[in-house]
Amino acid sequence: MVDYAPISTRLTERFGLDAPIVSAPMAFAAGGALAAAVSRAGALGFIGGGYGDADWLEAQWQEAGNQPVGCGFITWKMAQSPELLTLALDRKPAAMFLSFGELRPHAEQVKAAGVPLFAQVQTLAMARDAVAAGADVIVAQGSEAGGHGATRATMTLVPEVVDACADKALVLAAGGIADGRGLAAALMLGADGVLMGTRFWAAGEALVAPGFHDAALMADGDGTLRSSLPDKARGYDWPGEFDIRTLRNRWIKRWQEDPVGPVSPDAQEGFAKAVADGDADGAPAIVGEGIGLISAVMPASEIVVQTMAQAKAALARW
Amino acid sequence: MVDYAPISTRLTERFGLDAPIVSAPMAFAAGGALAAAVSRAGALGFIGGGYGDADWLEAQWQEAGNQPVGCGFITWKMAQSPELLTLALDRKPAAMFLSFGELRPHAEQVKAAGVPLFAQVQTLAMARDAVAAGADVIVAQGSEAGGHGATRATMTLVPEVVDACADKALVLAAGGIADGRGLAAALMLGADGVLMGTRFWAAGEALVAPGFHDAALMADGDGTLRSSLPDKARGYDWPGEFDIRTLRNRWIKRWQEDPVGPVSPDAQEGFAKAVADGDADGAPAIVGEGIGLISAVMPASEIVVQTMAQAKAALARW
Repeated sequence: MVDYAPISTRLTERFGLDAPIVSAPMAFAAGGALAAAVSRAGALGFIGGGYGDADWLEAQWQEAGNQPVGCGFITWKMAQSPELLTLALDRKPAAMFLSFGELRPHAEQVKAAGVPLFAQVQTLAMARDAVAAGADVIVAQGSEAGGHGATRATMTLVPEVVDACADKALVLAAGGIADGRGLAAALMLGADGVLMGTRFWAAGEALVAPGFHDAALMADGDGTLRSSLPDKARGYDWPGEFDIRTLRNRWIKRWQEDPVGPVSPDAQEGFAKAVADGDADGAPAIVGEGIGLISAVMPASEIVVQTMAQAKAALARW
Repeated sequence: MVDYAPISTRLTERFGLDAPIVSAPMAFAAGGALAAAVSRAGALGFIGGGYGDADWLEAQWQEAGNQPVGCGFITWKMAQSPELLTLALDRKPAAMFLSFGELRPHAEQVKAAGVPLFAQVQTLAMARDAVAAGADVIVAQGSEAGGHGATRATMTLVPEVVDACADKALVLAAGGIADGRGLAAALMLGADGVLMGTRFWAAGEALVAPGFHDAALMADGDGTLRSSLPDKARGYDWPGEFDIRTLRNRWIKRWQEDPVGPVSPDAQEGFAKAVADGDADGAPAIVGEGIGLISAVMPASEIVVQTMAQAKAALARW
């Protein structure tokens, strides 16, 4: 047990948490150790099933041990290997998190397994669809988030989704929330809690090479942008409505000026090597605008404790 | 006097307000009647000097009567007719609001006139520059705002600007704040108050044709986008870092598919006529994502009362 004063919301009641905080199922970065550390701290941790690799996923479940954690997938990618969803549900995750793609074809299977369904959405229209498909928790994600997302901002998307959906589902705020002030603000907007990505990306337990952590901690919130360049370099066939927020590093600047983009075998191999080597000039760290609010890599438990203490202080001030 | 429980912040103390709320100096829409109504309600109203028309500005000062109000300019445009700043300062405004352009060449004149200087910024770097130039109040504007702006979002920009500048200037949150939940959230992020544009654009006193109000009230927050199309149609030479958020209407969709844009005399005349006629198909309403949180045009005083009551309720809940 971790030492902080709990905050009670519909989220904490429903999932037996002390903190209305969820860690994002970030592809590659959110392994079992991070997810378990977050859950152990009284929040809810998610393993990022990402682009779907059964062996990797299996290893991460082992890492998480007996700690209850959730699992997330990139929906359009998982739909190409739907057996991954079955494998994950067999693990009895604390929740299943689906984002970026059609929810409806998979919702029934999740519900039938008795697993709570988190649906991440980027528009009001997507939130309405997710509720209609049976989602238990809507994660309203603003454009300031790191990684994939779309164009609407957290400050308006959250209250609008609350107005439309909070009588039928819980609503979490995601995008740009990196400290206790953001958590307190999200509660004011009517959210039942928050999802934090970038903040937990900068946790000691995240599967992130030190070179990327170092580069990101030096950046401020002006230093990120949305583009499709990393997806081109990885050969991922993302739906056009989503792009990916990263640091605006040397690699991004070089390819922004190239009309074709990093699609040649050379460019793709160079990118993959930079990712593997933790070379923050050769590939950009995948972080959101909230990176400007983060000054140190710390254990996930400390992130939860600090966020809760800061939120409590902000709430108490008013 | 208007009936609500005040909220006290550094902003209300400094300017003798009951509500930590400022109305945006929206070009064309924010005339003297709106500014005066906002100030009369215990908040701080601004006339939008916009693109600079001395006769229009003079008429709006007359409309405002004896009510103390501020005045705002689009800085890069005002710099082409700097006598407008002198004219406005001669009126002893409650504050001068400068946005979108180089602050430094004008800051000294504002300070010398003994008028508090509000500087609207869209990045952390601009906030630092504005403080160095002597701004008294930094308005940190997120991309979700209606009208001109840039790319960073309110949820991260505000706390980051607070961390960097709040010991040297007041900080207001702008962009996506359209109700009391947004005001309460901004206070949690550390802001001394909020600037609301779209919400006061939908005030009875705003200089907005009914056709635009009607179209905007039917939209939700998914229905806006940033583009440069309206500036092309008006022949305005805006700096490249700023574009303008409007409804995504028929006119926008038509010109999005045109590689040249609405720059022909025919296209420009058609646009001007639609603006004059209140034809919401022929020109887009200039609103932010917050339009999805707004369901009625109401008097400015009622907007202040409702916002304050809702903020108080949100704050009291925690």
